[in-house]
Amino acid sequence: MSTTSATDRRYVLTLGCPDRPGIIAGITTFIAGFGGSIVEAGYHSDPDTGWFFTRQAIRADTVPFGAEALRAHFAGVAAGFGPETDWHLHDTGEPRRIVLLVSKDGHCLHDLLGRAAAGELPATIEAVIGNHPDLGPITEAHGVKFHHVPFPKDPAERGPAFEQVRDLVDAHDPSAVVLARFMQVLPAELCEHWAGRAINIHHSFLPSFVGARPYHQAYARGVKLIGATCHYVTAELDAGPIIEQDVTRIDHADTVSDMVRQGRDIERVVLSRGLRWHLEGRVLVHGRRTVVFE
Amino acid sequence: MSTTSATDRRYVLTLGCPDRPGIIAGITTFIAGFGGSIVEAGYHSDPDTGWFFTRQAIRADTVPFGAEALRAHFAGVAAGFGPETDWHLHDTGEPRRIVLLVSKDGHCLHDLLGRAAAGELPATIEAVIGNHPDLGPITEAHGVKFHHVPFPKDPAERGPAFEQVRDLVDAHDPSAVVLARFMQVLPAELCEHWAGRAINIHHSFLPSFVGARPYHQAYARGVKLIGATCHYVTAELDAGPIIEQDVTRIDHADTVSDMVRQGRDIERVVLSRGLRWHLEGRVLVHGRRTVVFE
Amino acid sequence: MSTTSATDRRYVLTLGCPDRPGIIAGITTFIAGFGGSIVEAGYHSDPDTGWFFTRQAIRADTVPFGAEALRAHFAGVAAGFGPETDWHLHDTGEPRRIVLLVSKDGHCLHDLLGRAAAGELPATIEAVIGNHPDLGPITEAHGVKFHHVPFPKDPAERGPAFEQVRDLVDAHDPSAVVLARFMQVLPAELCEHWAGRAINIHHSFLPSFVGARPYHQAYARGVKLIGATCHYVTAELDAGPIIEQDVTRIDHADTVSDMVRQGRDIERVVLSRGLRWHLEGRVLVHGRRTVVFE
Amino acid sequence: MSTTSATDRRYVLTLGCPDRPGIIAGITTFIAGFGGSIVEAGYHSDPDTGWFFTRQAIRADTVPFGAEALRAHFAGVAAGFGPETDWHLHDTGEPRRIVLLVSKDGHCLHDLLGRAAAGELPATIEAVIGNHPDLGPITEAHGVKFHHVPFPKDPAERGPAFEQVRDLVDAHDPSAVVLARFMQVLPAELCEHWAGRAINIHHSFLPSFVGARPYHQAYARGVKLIGATCHYVTAELDAGPIIEQDVTRIDHADTVSDMVRQGRDIERVVLSRGLRWHLEGRVLVHGRRTVVFE
Repeated sequence: MSTTSATDRRYVLTLGCPDRPGIIAGITTFIAGFGGSIVEAGYHSDPDTGWFFTRQAIRADTVPFGAEALRAHFAGVAAGFGPETDWHLHDTGEPRRIVLLVSKDGHCLHDLLGRAAAGELPATIEAVIGNHPDLGPITEAHGVKFHHVPFPKDPAERGPAFEQVRDLVDAHDPSAVVLARFMQVLPAELCEHWAGRAINIHHSFLPSFVGARPYHQAYARGVKLIGATCHYVTAELDAGPIIEQDVTRIDHADTVSDMVRQGRDIERVVLSRGLRWHLEGRVLVHGRRTVVFE
Repeated sequence: MSTTSATDRRYVLTLGCPDRPGIIAGITTFIAGFGGSIVEAGYHSDPDTGWFFTRQAIRADTVPFGAEALRAHFAGVAAGFGPETDWHLHDTGEPRRIVLLVSKDGHCLHDLLGRAAAGELPATIEAVIGNHPDLGPITEAHGVKFHHVPFPKDPAERGPAFEQVRDLVDAHDPSAVVLARFMQVLPAELCEHWAGRAINIHHSFLPSFVGARPYHQAYARGVKLIGATCHYVTAELDAGPIIEQDVTRIDHADTVSDMVRQGRDIERVVLSRGLRWHLEGRVLVHGRRTVVFE
Repeated sequence: MSTTSATDRRYVLTLGCPDRPGIIAGITTFIAGFGGSIVEAGYHSDPDTGWFFTRQAIRADTVPFGAEALRAHFAGVAAGFGPETDWHLHDTGEPRRIVLLVSKDGHCLHDLLGRAAAGELPATIEAVIGNHPDLGPITEAHGVKFHHVPFPKDPAERGPAFEQVRDLVDAHDPSAVVLARFMQVLPAELCEHWAGRAINIHHSFLPSFVGARPYHQAYARGVKLIGATCHYVTAELDAGPIIEQDVTRIDHADTVSDMVRQGRDIERVVLSRGLRWHLEGRVLVHGRRTVVFE
Repeated sequence: MSTTSATDRRYVLTLGCPDRPGIIAGITTFIAGFGGSIVEAGYHSDPDTGWFFTRQAIRADTVPFGAEALRAHFAGVAAGFGPETDWHLHDTGEPRRIVLLVSKDGHCLHDLLGRAAAGELPATIEAVIGNHPDLGPITEAHGVKFHHVPFPKDPAERGPAFEQVRDLVDAHDPSAVVLARFMQVLPAELCEHWAGRAINIHHSFLPSFVGARPYHQAYARGVKLIGATCHYVTAELDAGPIIEQDVTRIDHADTVSDMVRQGRDIERVVLSRGLRWHLEGRVLVHGRRTVVFE
């Protein structure tokens, strides 16, 4: 799914709206009307909220017009599903950009740079911003621009640093701002500004062990599995909609350092999986929950 | 999904046919045409074989006619998808029956009896047939009929015993014949006779360790995980289409007996999951592979 | 490990004490002194608390005296490890008893009865006590005594019922009192009275979702995995030392009912595993954490 | 375990010998004799082969003499365990070196370079040798020497290339030669020459799908989980002693390309875990099986 040769190019339609009979028929009849070939389709009807969600991947070479025309045509169909309808059409042929925020811990950065080099991510890493300079050299060895934005010790004085980060990020108009173990709590206005695009990896199986030093918390509680959670960033700390989670088994002999090391393997996989799903339009947010069409 | 109160009753449509544009539209337009409410939908377009597969669960109380009429109406739609089209409509309000074949090992039997008692299975266990009498008392304690059919030691002389088993099974016209650690290889004609309904649990991660004593084979090879496989029975031993598999971690300290004990937990879960999916019409077979709409 | 034929019989020594050099040498020299054969050995030196823990399984037929004499001899060795030393010697040839507390939900009960029938548990289920009568018949079908102790609706009036439960349990002097989905919070004095023997299965991955309706809590939070936790019961709700945990993957399409069904498979396995480890002397408690020598 | 500051330095003793009473006592009494502090201990008594295996990690700063003297002293103890006894004493303070063999696929290389940069590996990557030049630039960006050794198309003419690889590897006297998706079958004499040091990652859950294109084989068979296996290289293809394995779930919708991508995550983790255990002296080989003291 990550490459975009002529036959691999897709128009990816995602849609959420209050459920009613005939939505699937309406969408698929529309697509069949111009001979479009659906290669992947996901549907979810949520009995609690009464909402309906879908994702349809259409082979672009079976569509006799471009993405803009397809959007214009589909707007008429979507209008029939009510005013709350939320839909997007994403052309995998359009380049996508991501920016990473990092600190000193390099395992998620190394992993994402490696995946980008291997063609695993359907996006380009445009820039990496660190509040410490440590990860600059390896970033630049991958041909990616690194920006060092020092953060003052006093949280009250970090406003200008966050503004600088915001400007650096926004210059790329990225599809995702990834907090790859950034270790700084984003101010509420940045959470709002990047809503639905800022993705964090938290090193616990949320909602257990919110906040700082989750592996220490896990050790103290004596849990038998540790985990990691990839979620959208919201103003409430570690409480945004969860995209993906996974765990790994530990035992009494594992020290906090052992957990840190084993946890890295989970963090890497969970973050990269969540990020890829986000970029492929597989994640639809509704309230505090996500619908993920894997 | 397993209960069938008035609002829980579903018409479950499964269909496989050569892929072409417009199939989803055709089906969903048909359903929307009488105001049917689709509560679950799965689609799969297989790029290798060029086949399309779908499963649609429709709320029965939104369909203004019965299952037979729905089948008759849909036959016209299906005819448009070509002569190879294979489809079924299953009414969850119709009672379903299963028959279990067992030997001496009771863990899968206990598990299925317990699940039936807890209402987890969308079917009734009609009878249990054992080639040893050991599991009779506990079966009957659950109010289920037990038949003891002794098998001669010489495989060449087992024909009459298999015929007796066949008659006992067929008397119930079951939706599934479950080999719950039966330990006898079905003759080819029974595999054929129960094709698509005979389900086996093999205590290895197939295709590794086909045949007898798979845990001994796993021990000798020194693998680090052991598994179990639920598959449809075909004439080729342990080679039928796989419905479900899972594994559990072992280590060097685990003896064959330890593997047997740990393997039981995997066998129980894998068999019950595969059986439930089969009964809910979630499993579509195509050649040697299955499409499973979980 | 669960059978106790002559050659399978073990003396299982467990010991915890402040760490110092020479403890392993002291214990193993003692055992080698009479020609004892150690068939399983676990050691753990905890860097945080400075405590040392061990479990040694000795083939009983290599010990030239009985369990009582072995205890008497070892007491001298243990005395050298300081006054805080906590040790036990368990003879697998001595019969062990368990009592189960249940309510209406039968999946854990069915599972444990099935395992007992299959010889998987190194103990006898002596009695099952239910605050509802529903699970009586199947319990008795397994030849196990069932006691129905009705509980008043008003929690303030449950004292006499708990006293009756206590008497029924204590009559068997059990090695384990298993709350197999009992759904009643034990009063603090019973937690104290059965300390280290009362084992609960909680249907969440603790410390997430303490208390009532954990699957509803999990659904509302939108987690991507659900779990179960087997732990010793203490006066603080769902906060006792954790013996075992596991999880299973869910997705957005899973309703609370689906979680309940999938969670049962995890509950069964986690409870039976934790109970078996407890009965085999594999679990050593230290503060809020457990050392588990699998 | 991977760092080697003064207090972190360990002497790691590994030993295998025919089992007899008193081995543990002999070893631990020896260590206690000079006040050595054991911080990690693993024991395994194999009932099938009658062999005993142990690994002991001793804090180097509690040993009043150096590694060479400790080896000399222990030789006397080991002599008492019989002539077949196989033991090693590894000083984590001594630098360890690894060499990687690669082809075009970079995911394992990126991962190991990232882990080395993050200090996760107790060894230095001394050199990377590729039969294609593609992975040279990123290797060199990490400050690691890259050697391109072209391989002729005709397998019969590859002898000189393998000799060149052998010389390049042997120049570093490495503790591990890692085939990080090297895609070339080592000649028998190299398997012999690097016996116990050459480590391969195979992209299937062995013994399923030996040889070429395992993901294609897995797809054709319709398995529900795919895996990866880290093993020592022996002359028989993909049949050497297994160090570590893991799996990940797939479904009918996953194409071979999807499996390749998901498989990479398993390959990375399984290889790095197996390699780390090898370097930390946690893996003891006995016949075709391994004892792994995690």
